[in-house]
Amino acid sequence: MSTPDHLFHFSTEVRVRLPETDAMGIVFHGTFFTYLEVGRVDYLRNLGLAEGVRPIKDFENLVVSGHLDFKSPARYDDPLVIDVRMREIRGSSFTFAFCIRHKPENRVVALGQTTHCAVDAELRPIRVPDRFRDVIAAYEGWSAE
Amino acid sequence: MSTPDHLFHFSTEVRVRLPETDAMGIVFHGTFFTYLEVGRVDYLRNLGLAEGVRPIKDFENLVVSGHLDFKSPARYDDPLVIDVRMREIRGSSFTFAFCIRHKPENRVVALGQTTHCAVDAELRPIRVPDRFRDVIAAYEGWSAE
Amino acid sequence: MSTPDHLFHFSTEVRVRLPETDAMGIVFHGTFFTYLEVGRVDYLRNLGLAEGVRPIKDFENLVVSGHLDFKSPARYDDPLVIDVRMREIRGSSFTFAFCIRHKPENRVVALGQTTHCAVDAELRPIRVPDRFRDVIAAYEGWSAE
Amino acid sequence: MSTPDHLFHFSTEVRVRLPETDAMGIVFHGTFFTYLEVGRVDYLRNLGLAEGVRPIKDFENLVVSGHLDFKSPARYDDPLVIDVRMREIRGSSFTFAFCIRHKPENRVVALGQTTHCAVDAELRPIRVPDRFRDVIAAYEGWSAE
Repeated sequence: MSTPDHLFHFSTEVRVRLPETDAMGIVFHGTFFTYLEVGRVDYLRNLGLAEGVRPIKDFENLVVSGHLDFKSPARYDDPLVIDVRMREIRGSSFTFAFCIRHKPENRVVALGQTTHCAVDAELRPIRVPDRFRDVIAAYEGWSAE
Repeated sequence: MSTPDHLFHFSTEVRVRLPETDAMGIVFHGTFFTYLEVGRVDYLRNLGLAEGVRPIKDFENLVVSGHLDFKSPARYDDPLVIDVRMREIRGSSFTFAFCIRHKPENRVVALGQTTHCAVDAELRPIRVPDRFRDVIAAYEGWSAE
Repeated sequence: MSTPDHLFHFSTEVRVRLPETDAMGIVFHGTFFTYLEVGRVDYLRNLGLAEGVRPIKDFENLVVSGHLDFKSPARYDDPLVIDVRMREIRGSSFTFAFCIRHKPENRVVALGQTTHCAVDAELRPIRVPDRFRDVIAAYEGWSAE
Repeated sequence: MSTPDHLFHFSTEVRVRLPETDAMGIVFHGTFFTYLEVGRVDYLRNLGLAEGVRPIKDFENLVVSGHLDFKSPARYDDPLVIDVRMREIRGSSFTFAFCIRHKPENRVVALGQTTHCAVDAELRPIRVPDRFRDVIAAYEGWSAE
């Protein structure tokens, strides 16, 4: 089950804060992973899959990889749109895709993805629960092939 | 010119992000200075005193002191209200006061202030420009004693 | 029991990292609280009072206030010395004092303090344990008046 | 010109700071890009290619992509080794490879790479200067094929 690369049904927004920039005058590249975190949690909250004390309710997850391609710089006070979608859910892992755009200029700032592993309390991999799969498949419009 | 301690006409909101917390399970105390920065810029933007590339348009400023009293912890995903006001403008310095509240519980999380010095391009103190004083005095309801 | 303001027996060092600076070209003022944290933990580790999983072994603590006066800017890659001492231990609270200096120029960058409250697992104040007091009093040279 | 994947001639060390962890009890994944920055600058400084005000002297650079695979968690106060090498220098881009290891356990925490583009003052791509290539080729032991 997966979603075509160009389709995003969900987006959220942040405005660049001063400490997120660096002395080069632009947003430090590592900061963008914080923006992805904001986007991911808003995506899950919108589907009723997040709860206050944990990013995902019902199970824990570990980030197993993160990747970002930086297309253009973002600066202090820039309003940014974070497009978020679930790209794929496999046995115990799932991958979010992101596009970060400069809002007034509609310019792509970064493209990326993060892959997560569902784990139990001892951080051992578990199968991604069906309810999580079903809610996301319905939202992303995945047909139950 | 100053404003009584209990009066805030302006507030903005943030939601605690995961990297703003630490392994103690609560927001790292230094992170609150980032929230004060967000509140301060929103306060100035609301009065037309901020602009994209600099927190204050027309002049530069340096933070000369910062103080926070922590009253209760904030946790991941907590919605926080940041009350902001200008407490005082002197010759070349000015002091913001802040109250950070847990929004649903209306519980005080932190109280604090930051003092700033207006500077020129060589970081030498200058007198705070009259226009800045006037706009803020009008907003805060300071009588022109 | 307290130590005179000008005496520091302990110091540690950091080098300013790029993401610790901001678009103003200098270290973001909130970042200095991270440097104080580094100094505080090194101070306690040096006395055998820290342990891996918790900044202070034997009891938890909450930061109840933090204050910094900024004397001169620090920039990317600057080597900084963080002088640390315990200023005072009271019933359930204790206060660290700090001086941050630019190492090659021996210029004061910031002066400050943080006050902490010893707490139990439910975050209720407890008396600061005697062992903690004794080790620090010996190190700081407090006479047992 | 490139270096085999398993060879690192250079490493530096960091100790995990409290604000670098999050409420999950482990280092926030985005924080590792700060550690890569520390490693990269130390690598360049060791070769005389860094200078105080800029990560690379002689030319500016932009990060064009970053990737990390997370193999095991790092926790508060963990001593980490950051292995750094230049993997490849092309026309206007160059790629660093990294391995982050838990020092006492010699356990791999993360593997990754960052790719950078050499740019002029207007952020337009330029050819990576020969001196930079030569110094690094000599250090990494690349034969001048």
